Amino acid sequence: MSATFELDARLAADTALVGRSEGGLVLLMDDARWPWLLLVPELPGASQLHELEALDAARVLSTSLAIARAMTGALPARRINVGALGNVVPQLHLHHVLRQEGDPAWPGPVWGHGTKQRYDAAERDATVERWRRELAELL
Amino acid sequence: MSATFELDARLAADTALVGRSEGGLVLLMDDARWPWLLLVPELPGASQLHELEALDAARVLSTSLAIARAMTGALPARRINVGALGNVVPQLHLHHVLRQEGDPAWPGPVWGHGTKQRYDAAERDATVERWRRELAELL
Repeated sequence: MSATFELDARLAADTALVGRSEGGLVLLMDDARWPWLLLVPELPGASQLHELEALDAARVLSTSLAIARAMTGALPARRINVGALGNVVPQLHLHHVLRQEGDPAWPGPVWGHGTKQRYDAAERDATVERWRRELAELL
Repeated sequence: MSATFELDARLAADTALVGRSEGGLVLLMDDARWPWLLLVPELPGASQLHELEALDAARVLSTSLAIARAMTGALPARRINVGALGNVVPQLHLHHVLRQEGDPAWPGPVWGHGTKQRYDAAERDATVERWRRELAELL
């Protein structure tokens, strides 16, 4: 556990930075199959939600709720799936994924489903910009 | 949306009642492959976390954290997976699943994985009793 926060290399490779919020970094998952944002608290060594100090947990969870509200307000969706798994990457990160009936994994979970479909660079930049606007109040 | 809470029939068929907490019903998922508890807020019509009133959301989430602490304290686990999906059953329910390296779905998610393995009746009752003891402070 280091004294400074550093984003896990695997998360860094799979995401693009949308911005920083009170609850942590907001990252776009580089997978065009679903609108998918991660929240990564900038807490050195943080791994699981229930291990956080109460105030940290409250900050992370209220930011997560705000992300879910912004995402569901920005795009039509049947559900938002919110999860903290970390089986592959132990650094604490919360997933927020908009789901549609008939999307590539529906009604199953997105994690580990099929093959990631990366955005092309222009599409990724435009998507990041869009989420920056939609989440402006949080960032 | 009815004025009184009623547990979704599918959740009822797939679970056994552990007890009631401030955050809602605590249910044992009737699948012996993983230690797996659900939290179902007794809020009529509740479907997604971010739609709850702030106080309700805080109560549900703090209970969820307490369930995660109790589960990880009671049994050795590599991770706890916590998620709110609801793609199949829209009634709001939060999953808490203890995971081990090499468990039947590791490192993938448990939802939708393979075929449910129901407890036999004695084993289910003993498991419910065990969780009742482990969660005694919440129930």
